[in-house]
Amino acid sequence: MENKAFFMTDLNKMELRDVEMPKIKDNEVLIKLEYVGICGSDVHYLEHGKIGDFVVEGDFILGHECSGRVVEIGKDVKTLKVGDKVALEPGQTCGQCEFCKSGKYNLCPDVEFLATPPYHGCLENYIAYPENMAFKLPDNISTKEGALIEPLAVGMHAAAQGNVKLGSSVVILGAGCIGLVTLLACKAYGATDITVVDVLQKRLDVAMQLGATRVINAANENTLETYSKINSKGADVVIETAGSKITIQQTAYIVKTGGTIVLVGMAPEDIIDYNFAKILAKEAEIKSVFRYRNIYPIAIKAVAQGLIDISGIVTHEFDFEKTPEAFQYVINNKQDVVKAVIKID
Amino acid sequence: MENKAFFMTDLNKMELRDVEMPKIKDNEVLIKLEYVGICGSDVHYLEHGKIGDFVVEGDFILGHECSGRVVEIGKDVKTLKVGDKVALEPGQTCGQCEFCKSGKYNLCPDVEFLATPPYHGCLENYIAYPENMAFKLPDNISTKEGALIEPLAVGMHAAAQGNVKLGSSVVILGAGCIGLVTLLACKAYGATDITVVDVLQKRLDVAMQLGATRVINAANENTLETYSKINSKGADVVIETAGSKITIQQTAYIVKTGGTIVLVGMAPEDIIDYNFAKILAKEAEIKSVFRYRNIYPIAIKAVAQGLIDISGIVTHEFDFEKTPEAFQYVINNKQDVVKAVIKID
Amino acid sequence: MENKAFFMTDLNKMELRDVEMPKIKDNEVLIKLEYVGICGSDVHYLEHGKIGDFVVEGDFILGHECSGRVVEIGKDVKTLKVGDKVALEPGQTCGQCEFCKSGKYNLCPDVEFLATPPYHGCLENYIAYPENMAFKLPDNISTKEGALIEPLAVGMHAAAQGNVKLGSSVVILGAGCIGLVTLLACKAYGATDITVVDVLQKRLDVAMQLGATRVINAANENTLETYSKINSKGADVVIETAGSKITIQQTAYIVKTGGTIVLVGMAPEDIIDYNFAKILAKEAEIKSVFRYRNIYPIAIKAVAQGLIDISGIVTHEFDFEKTPEAFQYVINNKQDVVKAVIKID
Amino acid sequence: MENKAFFMTDLNKMELRDVEMPKIKDNEVLIKLEYVGICGSDVHYLEHGKIGDFVVEGDFILGHECSGRVVEIGKDVKTLKVGDKVALEPGQTCGQCEFCKSGKYNLCPDVEFLATPPYHGCLENYIAYPENMAFKLPDNISTKEGALIEPLAVGMHAAAQGNVKLGSSVVILGAGCIGLVTLLACKAYGATDITVVDVLQKRLDVAMQLGATRVINAANENTLETYSKINSKGADVVIETAGSKITIQQTAYIVKTGGTIVLVGMAPEDIIDYNFAKILAKEAEIKSVFRYRNIYPIAIKAVAQGLIDISGIVTHEFDFEKTPEAFQYVINNKQDVVKAVIKID
Repeated sequence: MENKAFFMTDLNKMELRDVEMPKIKDNEVLIKLEYVGICGSDVHYLEHGKIGDFVVEGDFILGHECSGRVVEIGKDVKTLKVGDKVALEPGQTCGQCEFCKSGKYNLCPDVEFLATPPYHGCLENYIAYPENMAFKLPDNISTKEGALIEPLAVGMHAAAQGNVKLGSSVVILGAGCIGLVTLLACKAYGATDITVVDVLQKRLDVAMQLGATRVINAANENTLETYSKINSKGADVVIETAGSKITIQQTAYIVKTGGTIVLVGMAPEDIIDYNFAKILAKEAEIKSVFRYRNIYPIAIKAVAQGLIDISGIVTHEFDFEKTPEAFQYVINNKQDVVKAVIKID
Repeated sequence: MENKAFFMTDLNKMELRDVEMPKIKDNEVLIKLEYVGICGSDVHYLEHGKIGDFVVEGDFILGHECSGRVVEIGKDVKTLKVGDKVALEPGQTCGQCEFCKSGKYNLCPDVEFLATPPYHGCLENYIAYPENMAFKLPDNISTKEGALIEPLAVGMHAAAQGNVKLGSSVVILGAGCIGLVTLLACKAYGATDITVVDVLQKRLDVAMQLGATRVINAANENTLETYSKINSKGADVVIETAGSKITIQQTAYIVKTGGTIVLVGMAPEDIIDYNFAKILAKEAEIKSVFRYRNIYPIAIKAVAQGLIDISGIVTHEFDFEKTPEAFQYVINNKQDVVKAVIKID
Repeated sequence: MENKAFFMTDLNKMELRDVEMPKIKDNEVLIKLEYVGICGSDVHYLEHGKIGDFVVEGDFILGHECSGRVVEIGKDVKTLKVGDKVALEPGQTCGQCEFCKSGKYNLCPDVEFLATPPYHGCLENYIAYPENMAFKLPDNISTKEGALIEPLAVGMHAAAQGNVKLGSSVVILGAGCIGLVTLLACKAYGATDITVVDVLQKRLDVAMQLGATRVINAANENTLETYSKINSKGADVVIETAGSKITIQQTAYIVKTGGTIVLVGMAPEDIIDYNFAKILAKEAEIKSVFRYRNIYPIAIKAVAQGLIDISGIVTHEFDFEKTPEAFQYVINNKQDVVKAVIKID
Repeated sequence: MENKAFFMTDLNKMELRDVEMPKIKDNEVLIKLEYVGICGSDVHYLEHGKIGDFVVEGDFILGHECSGRVVEIGKDVKTLKVGDKVALEPGQTCGQCEFCKSGKYNLCPDVEFLATPPYHGCLENYIAYPENMAFKLPDNISTKEGALIEPLAVGMHAAAQGNVKLGSSVVILGAGCIGLVTLLACKAYGATDITVVDVLQKRLDVAMQLGATRVINAANENTLETYSKINSKGADVVIETAGSKITIQQTAYIVKTGGTIVLVGMAPEDIIDYNFAKILAKEAEIKSVFRYRNIYPIAIKAVAQGLIDISGIVTHEFDFEKTPEAFQYVINNKQDVVKAVIKID
C-alpha cells in the first residue's frame, strides 16, 4: 500500500505526489478512497486561491466529497469492519462548544473541514478518519453514490431548514448541482409541488427527469408572472440556490404569506437590494444554510430505500490520474457539468 | 346613553358627531369605552389618508388601542358581566381560513381590524364587540393600562417570534413606543441582557428606566463597534423596531452565529441594501412580525402579576373632546411623545 | 331531488326514512353524497348506544366518513362549483375559542362532529355543508377514495404527532384500519423502517402489501424479543393503535432513548399498569391523538400524487339500501373487515 | 497543597483519606472545591450501594453538586483564569454520538458523571476538570450558590421540557428539593400561576416563601377536588417531582386539554396504574426528564440577575470534616432537610 495525493501547488496547477501512509488512532479507520466528487468550492480554490477568509497557503490537497472502503480499524472501533463501504462527513467538530452541545455542530468554530484551509482534502488514495464520521453504506449503495452524499446533505439541510414536508409547495431558484440535490431532497421530504427555475434549458431538462413538477426557464419567461399564474398564493417554501442578486430578490415576491425562504446559494459579497416591506406584510421568515448537520444517516437511508436516486446527478467521471484535466474540464464547461467525480482505483 | 364619535373628515381634519348606539348580537357585549391610545398608524392615516393599500374613503373613525367597561351583554355571553373592565383585541378574524385554522389568525385575509379601512375604529363612547375578543381585566389593571395591551402585544409577539427566553441576549434597535414595549416584553420573557439603541437620548433614558441593561446612543457612538466591544459573539436576538434602512442593515452584523433577527418596524417601501452573505455565514434567521396572535391573555396576566409595568410608557393624556388637539400635538412632537392616550368619560 | 336517511332507531336497528332536503346557507354547498365509510365508532353507537359521555338519544343518523359531489352552491361560495367532487371534514368548529385560535381546533369544546350525539351523521343522500370544510378532490381521486380521507387523516395526525419524518424507524402496534392508515401515513411522511405488529395474520398480510418493512405476528412471537433483535436501540417512534392493555404497556419497552410514543387506540376506560421508570430513564415522550387537524388538504395532495394508495384498505362495499346488512356484516366479521364503505347512488 | 477525599467504604460508612493531587490536561483546570451539596442520590448510594443498574464497587467518592475556585489552568484554557469561581457540570459527554450531535447530550451513553459508578464524585479538596464544563460564576454568585446550580438545572430542564413560559399555569406535585427548584425555575420561565402540592406543611411553607401562588396540603385536602375549584380547565403544565404512585396517577386528571405533563420524580420500579383514556381524550402529552442539558449558562445568568434566589433552598450546612455526620443527619431527618451542603475550607 502506498499513498499518493494531488496537491494544488499554485493557481490552476495540480501535481501528484507521494505522501505518507496515514496512521490511524484507536478511534479511527483507514480508508482506501474510491470516489471523490469535484465541488464548486474545490474549483474556486484552484482558480482563486481563497474563499472569503479561507486562504490557501502552500501546497494544498483539494476534495471533500468522498467515499471508499475500510482497510484497517483502530482498536476502539466497534461499528465498522474491514471491507465496509463508507461515506465520510468532511467536518470534524469539537463536540464541546455551545454550538456542538446544542445540536448545531455545523456552526462549531473549531471544525476541521476537509479541503478548507488549513485542513487538507481527500484527493488521495488513503485517509485516516474517525469512526463516528465514517458512515457505513449498505450493499445497495455504491461508493460512487457514497461520494454524492455530501452535496445531497446540503440539499437535505436546505429542505429541513425550510421545514419542507408532506404537501409542501416549493420553488427552487437555480438548477445547478445544489438546486438539483435540493429538488431530490424536497421530493424525499414530501413536497407535492416543486417548481424549478433556471436560465439554462439543459439543467431544467435534468430537473424534469429528476422529478420536478414543472420548470420555468427564466431566460424566456418572467419568473414572478409565470409563477403567480401557477400559484397565486405563493409557495410555502422558496429555496434560493443560485446565489445571484436577482434570484435572492425574487424570493420576497414568490413566498406565500406566512411562508419560508431558505438561502443556500452563496450571496455575492456585496450587498443586495431587498424588499423587506413584502416580508413584513407576509410575516414570512428567511432561513439560511451553512453546510448541514445530522444529515448523513438520513441521507443514506433515503438513498438505500430508493426515495432518492442520487446517481442521476453525475454527468462526468474521470480517472484519478486525470484529476488536473478533470478540474480543467469543469472550469471550461461550467454550464454542462452538473457533477463530475474522480474515480480512484 | 348616547354615542358620539370623532370622524376624520379629510386630511388633518377631525369632527365630533352623533352616531347611533350600537346594538349587540347574542355573542357580543356593549362596551363603554374609557381609554383609546393614539397609534402611529392612526396619525399616519390622518396625515396621509392611507397606509400601503389601505386607503381611507369617506369619513372615518380612527383608534384601535382601547379599553372600557361592559354595560350590556348578549344572551349567549358567558364569561363577561356588566361592570367588567375589558381590553379589546382589534382584529376580528374569520376563524375558518387556512391561517385561522393553523393558529396564525393574524394572517387571516378577511380580518376586520379596527381603524383599518374599510373598518371604523373606536374613538367613540360605545362599541359592540364579540365576547371572545373582549378580554377581562382583573381588578388591579386599570382601563388606561388596558388600552396599552394592544401596543404591548406587538412587542410581545416580536419577542415570541424571536424565541426570546430565559437567558437571551437581545439588541433592540429603536426606542420609540414599539421599541420600548418590546423591551418590556423581552424582560418578561426572561432576557437577561438587553441593549437598546436609538438616536434620541430622551428615549434612551426611558429605556433605562424601563429596565434596559444598557443603551447605545447611535447619534454619538458607532452601534456596531460599541456593541461588539460589549458582546463580541453578537446578540442571540436582534429586534428591529425603527424601520430605518440603516438599522435594518445593522441587524446582519449584530446577530450572533445561529441567532435570530426579528423585523418589526415597517420597512421603507423602497428596497434595502442588505448583506445576506453575513446571514449565510452565520446561518442566522430573519423572522418578521405582522400584528400579533394569542397574546392578549398572556399580556394581561403578565401586567396583572407585575412582570410588566405598562403604564410607564404613557407620556401624554388628553380628554375625549380634545382629540383633534391630541393628534395635532402628537404630529408636532413626535420625538417627545412615547404614547398619548385619550380619556373618554 | 329527494332525500332519504338511515336512522338508528334502537340498538342494532336501522330504518330508512324520508328527510327534508337541506337548505344551504350563503357559505354552504349542497352535496349529493356518493360514499360513506363505516367506522368503528358508528358500529359502537349502533351496538351500545354510546361512546364515553356521548349518548345517542332518539333516532340518530350514523356516518361521518363521506364524500360526494356539489350540486348547488351558496352565494358566498368561491372555491367550489357545481359538479366538483369533495371530501367532507366532519368536525365544524367554533373558530373563536382558545383552542381554535391557537391552531388546535380538534380540541374545540363546541365542535359539531357528524354522527357524534347530538349531531346527526351523513348516511343520507344530501347534506348541506360549509365551503371551508368541503375539500375539493382532483380528477384522479374518486369519491370512494374521498370517503377514506377521514380515517387516513387519523393516521396522518398520528404520524405528525410522532414527528415521523424522513429516515424514522417506526413500530405500529395493531393492524386494524387505523393501524393500516397509520402505516400508509408513516410511509408518506418518510419513515424508512416500519414494523407492524398484530395477532391476525390476515391483517399483517395486508400490512405487507401496503408497504410495511416487516411484520411481527404477536400470536406466535414475543414482540419485545423479536423487535429487540431487529433493532436493539429501539424505535424512534412507537404508535399504539390497538387500544389494548398489553400493547400500551409494550410502548415503554420498544421506544428508543429520546424517542416518542404516540397513543391512538382508545385505551380501555379502566386504568393501565405502565412502566414509567423506563420512560424516565429514556427521557422518552408520550403524545396522544384526538381526531386530527389541518390534515385534509395534505392528505388529498398525498393521495393525488400517488404517495398514498388509500383504496387498498377497502375490503367490502355495500349499496345504500343494504346499509343495515352492511353494519350487521361488519359486526359479525370484525376480524375480516378492514374498511367497509356504503355506495349511495 | 494536599488533597483529601471522603470515601464511602461500605454501606453507611465513610472515611477521609489522602488522595493524589490531580494533574490537569491541557484543556483542564484545577479547582479547589469550596462547596458540595448532598443529593438524594448520594444518600441512596450510601444507604443501598446502588441505584438501578449503577452499583458501587469498591471504595467510592460521593458528591456531584459542586463549586470552587480555579487554582491552575491548562495551557489550552482560554476562558478561565486562576481565581475564578466556577460551578462544575458533573456529566462529561463524548461529544460524538448521535445524542451528543443532535443536542441531547444528557442521553449520551458514554457520559462520565460524577458520583455515578464507576466514576468517583467530588467530596474532596481538589479536582481537575475540563474547561468547557467548568462554568464561571460572576462576582455576585457565591460558590455556595454555585454548588446549587446542579439541582436547579434539574428544575430548569423540567420547566423547559414542559415548555413553561410567560403566562403558564403550573401544578408542581411534591415540594422536596427538586419540587422547590422546579418552582423557582417555573417562576423564572414566566409561569404566572403556580400551585405546589405536598403532604408536609413545612415544605409547603417554604414553597410559599419561594413564590408559589398557592399550595395544597394533600394530607388535609383532596388535591384533585381542590385544584378543580381553583382552575376548572386544568393546568397548562403538571410537573411530577414526588415520584409516588398517587401523584403520578393524578397528573392525568390535573392537566388541561392539550396540556403537558412532565415526569421528574423517579417512578417506583414497579409499574403504575394510569388512566391513559384521560390522556387521549385531552390529547395531552407526557414528557420526562433525565438530568438536563445546556442549562448551566442560563441558570447562572438567571441567578446573577436575581431572577432566581437559589440560596433560599439551603437548610443545613456542615464542615468538610463532618461529612459523615452530615450524611447521617440527612438520613435521619429527610423531611426537614431541603438541601444540605458541605463547606470545604
